[in-house]
Amino acid sequence: MSTKNMVLKKDLKEKRELVNIAIDRFLPRKDEYPKQIHKAIRHTLFAGGKRLRPYLLINTYMLFKDDIDKTLLVAGAIEMLHTYTLIHDDLPEIDDDEYRRGKKACHVLFGSDIALLAGDALLIYAFQAIASSEEVDEKLRLDFIKELSIEAGHTGLIAGQMIDIQSEGKKISKETLEYIHTNKTGKLINLPIRFGCMLAEVPEEDQKRMENFGQKIGLAFQIVDDILDIEGSTETLGKTIGKDSKAKKATFPAVYGLEKSKQMAEKLITEAKVLLEPYGEKAELLLMLCDFIHTRKF
Amino acid sequence: MSTKNMVLKKDLKEKRELVNIAIDRFLPRKDEYPKQIHKAIRHTLFAGGKRLRPYLLINTYMLFKDDIDKTLLVAGAIEMLHTYTLIHDDLPEIDDDEYRRGKKACHVLFGSDIALLAGDALLIYAFQAIASSEEVDEKLRLDFIKELSIEAGHTGLIAGQMIDIQSEGKKISKETLEYIHTNKTGKLINLPIRFGCMLAEVPEEDQKRMENFGQKIGLAFQIVDDILDIEGSTETLGKTIGKDSKAKKATFPAVYGLEKSKQMAEKLITEAKVLLEPYGEKAELLLMLCDFIHTRKF
Repeated sequence: MSTKNMVLKKDLKEKRELVNIAIDRFLPRKDEYPKQIHKAIRHTLFAGGKRLRPYLLINTYMLFKDDIDKTLLVAGAIEMLHTYTLIHDDLPEIDDDEYRRGKKACHVLFGSDIALLAGDALLIYAFQAIASSEEVDEKLRLDFIKELSIEAGHTGLIAGQMIDIQSEGKKISKETLEYIHTNKTGKLINLPIRFGCMLAEVPEEDQKRMENFGQKIGLAFQIVDDILDIEGSTETLGKTIGKDSKAKKATFPAVYGLEKSKQMAEKLITEAKVLLEPYGEKAELLLMLCDFIHTRKF
Repeated sequence: MSTKNMVLKKDLKEKRELVNIAIDRFLPRKDEYPKQIHKAIRHTLFAGGKRLRPYLLINTYMLFKDDIDKTLLVAGAIEMLHTYTLIHDDLPEIDDDEYRRGKKACHVLFGSDIALLAGDALLIYAFQAIASSEEVDEKLRLDFIKELSIEAGHTGLIAGQMIDIQSEGKKISKETLEYIHTNKTGKLINLPIRFGCMLAEVPEEDQKRMENFGQKIGLAFQIVDDILDIEGSTETLGKTIGKDSKAKKATFPAVYGLEKSKQMAEKLITEAKVLLEPYGEKAELLLMLCDFIHTRKF
């Protein structure tokens, strides 16, 4: 492993732990009544996961400011929202997936009824966590709640998921593919970057630059995800592979072919890195993250 | 129909329409992309329903203040949250109910996948509606979001639902029955009363009195609900009857017997009405509502 990789890995681990502590402190104890719901929630939430979205929020913020504490619970809220989508997506009526983050999916271990409620609860806690982030200005907390609800709702995650469901087994256009991925994945990768900027109260120019950055790595992330569904292994990915192509899901390799998809990911990553140039050394970790998103095997 | 009943009916209808307008204005149009999700959401939301929770909020507020406009979107948000629980509860993995508010349940018409997402979306919109209630002070909006998330989460609705699921087919104690109903129904009847007080900025004494009122009518409402599951008809109730006893669900008649349950409901309603005495004429509509909750056939 290169030195750069080791530095990134260490930093990912450190910040992941800080976010995990913030989430753990915020959520009800595992042995609180009714126990099964907390076990189910914590099972998927702490099953692993890269904490990519919190990491993006924290590192965007730290391009401009130093006090990391302010970011942790807001970053944790985005992870809770992300985990709610995973639990509900894995349910039998949607993707019927048995594995998640290398472990049995929530509904496989706890039953579909409890998994449904665990997802609902995580969605509720995401909003509660933001509303309870005392370090953040009240007006900003309300803005976060509004933006989170917009990206999670019918112009974001829900929309992407709807069109994904309706497209299964059909031949889809490039536009539909982009629509699904922008909404299902892209917006929740871009959101923590926007939140990081808002928390740091950056000038509009930086906000725009960083949102542009977020769009590029969000799309690159999804393309690599689709490629890994073909070339990866269940063991390293922690979820069932080959499932998307079997289910005739909308993927980049299905629409553009494998080689073209790889070129697209590379181009996006290069462009994303260029956008970080004004931040010099401060952007080093985000630059490493770009390479990681590009070359990851999981 | 008595004059009192007609007055109440007219007032319920008028305020229901105001709340429906507020919800309709807030939600995305029916023909917005992706259409199916908005159709599914609006199907259950506007399938009927008494709008009891919004009515409680508005009428509690109007014991103390006159400007109804301030209450409408917050009241609508509680109705959205309530409807999310109905859609998810009706899903095959929980209650597997075919009818709701006199119409086919959401998942029966739109499929379980879309119904799941429609429920998620309504939960998201409930928080968004409160965050967007510009007439309400920012601090108060955050308090509403926190309280709504607490009552919806593991110490409220989710808890009640969890224990309800785990109790099915078992002989349950009086304590468990009360726990389930307090959390599954009571808290979301009490919450709009609390919100009404908070919006009107009432003294602590009134807040406590009205919360006490809310607890009593919340419990009475649930007992009558259980009695109607035995004595009511599917036609007037708009949902499948006899289902609770068939599924050996936790109900008051099952634990206390039918006669004793009726006596309990009567006692609670009488006590609730006494609590309204200090408000004189201003409380007339809430007094009528108490009688309605007691004698309703649907």
